[in-house]
Amino acid sequence: MRADAPIGVFDSGVGGLTVLRTLLRRLPNEHTVYLGDTARVPYGTRSGEVVTRYALLSARHLTTHGIKLLVVACNTVSAHSLPALAQALPIPVVGVIEPGAQAAAARSSGGLIAILGTPATVASGSYQAALRRLAPLASVVARACPLFVPLAEEGWVTGEIPHLIAERYLGDLRRMGVDTAVLGCTHYPLLAATIAEVLGPKVAIVDSAEATSVAVESLLEAQGLLREGGAPPTHRTLCTDVPDRFRAIAERFLGRPVGDVELVDLTA
Amino acid sequence: MRADAPIGVFDSGVGGLTVLRTLLRRLPNEHTVYLGDTARVPYGTRSGEVVTRYALLSARHLTTHGIKLLVVACNTVSAHSLPALAQALPIPVVGVIEPGAQAAAARSSGGLIAILGTPATVASGSYQAALRRLAPLASVVARACPLFVPLAEEGWVTGEIPHLIAERYLGDLRRMGVDTAVLGCTHYPLLAATIAEVLGPKVAIVDSAEATSVAVESLLEAQGLLREGGAPPTHRTLCTDVPDRFRAIAERFLGRPVGDVELVDLTA
Repeated sequence: MRADAPIGVFDSGVGGLTVLRTLLRRLPNEHTVYLGDTARVPYGTRSGEVVTRYALLSARHLTTHGIKLLVVACNTVSAHSLPALAQALPIPVVGVIEPGAQAAAARSSGGLIAILGTPATVASGSYQAALRRLAPLASVVARACPLFVPLAEEGWVTGEIPHLIAERYLGDLRRMGVDTAVLGCTHYPLLAATIAEVLGPKVAIVDSAEATSVAVESLLEAQGLLREGGAPPTHRTLCTDVPDRFRAIAERFLGRPVGDVELVDLTA
Repeated sequence: MRADAPIGVFDSGVGGLTVLRTLLRRLPNEHTVYLGDTARVPYGTRSGEVVTRYALLSARHLTTHGIKLLVVACNTVSAHSLPALAQALPIPVVGVIEPGAQAAAARSSGGLIAILGTPATVASGSYQAALRRLAPLASVVARACPLFVPLAEEGWVTGEIPHLIAERYLGDLRRMGVDTAVLGCTHYPLLAATIAEVLGPKVAIVDSAEATSVAVESLLEAQGLLREGGAPPTHRTLCTDVPDRFRAIAERFLGRPVGDVELVDLTA
């Protein structure tokens, strides 16, 4: 494998663009190929078996782009399909849950850690299981926040409405004395300021996206696969469907223009 | 066809249960079979061709239950697939858009009619086209309200948060002097009180679900297919997948217990 090969980033939709955003910031010399399986989003309501089938299709497509590493920028796929992906692919596979849980375990003072995620991620118990292993002395509380995803997609991320909604989901966590909160959904970094405001200044906010790009950097460095310079890097964006609002939402999540969006058919 | 046969009701998920609810109230003697294609929800982000393919699979499954009429309790399917369904099935097919548009045309005083719906329904232009035909003198404004669906599913339908969100989506419609507003999404009837509060007392709220059950009653009556009495009616609920939160959300939408939920596999 060559250092000049791109990093592949995969999500069921646009959420993984927040992971790509942190990768671009941390590793500005890397080529990237992002694939959003927008034709089949959301994965959160599918069975684990179906999620793995879809994830394998997307991952195999990304390998045709010669990627040197696959980032699974999706909590649902990370919860269900990492072993199957690691077995099927000849390259390293990094999910978002393990790095997020590691960062939370490192930050927590051994008190109460809160996992914030979609109903599917919370119900999967994946963060809870990782934290039992990584921070056996900490207590863990998980909280599903279903309105955070549409708030992020609408771009309503600060002000009265998101504040009231965050207070309703999280107010009791502040009163319970949570010391660390994990943003366990790729949409939630857009609401980080509002979540921090509601939880208060003593609570450490752990962004799984940020933790994942740290893990990617370490892994590439350990394997001598970091791209150090050369021609400006290229960034491709692939989707399985391009819904009307895709570009506007994608650019908000990525924090910069997405360029051309290429449509790919994974059923072929 | 026998009057004793059930009415089939089809939606991509739980939203159509608000249509079933009005049907049960208006036609309390009828047997019903409800099918929610929860494994493939949401349809709103799929292409019209894919929506029609899914709808045909669901409709054909319902015909194996000997239904006498099919209610398409889904705005996306009503927008894209009614001609294909009507051609494929030997029974009458009733969608939600035409009855909703007819009711709006009848209620409006010829001023400004607002269509409230999901981004997909608004972008399809189906209500707008029906109203151009049914109320050629009225002006029409369409407004996508993406947060209304998760608010309805959370059960946050009255109070400060839904009021502020409705004000943000609809406040300018009140100032524009809308005289009639169509609830053009099967989730929105749960928010009807909040929507009415924001639009003000002079605005007529048209519920497509209610209008659709009136259309079903007329059609069955005209064909001599109304079930007048006899043994208590039976009500079956079928799903293609049963997500964790399904039952709680379904009962809120239906306004009564859903009983046993039967899992069906439409890919077989």
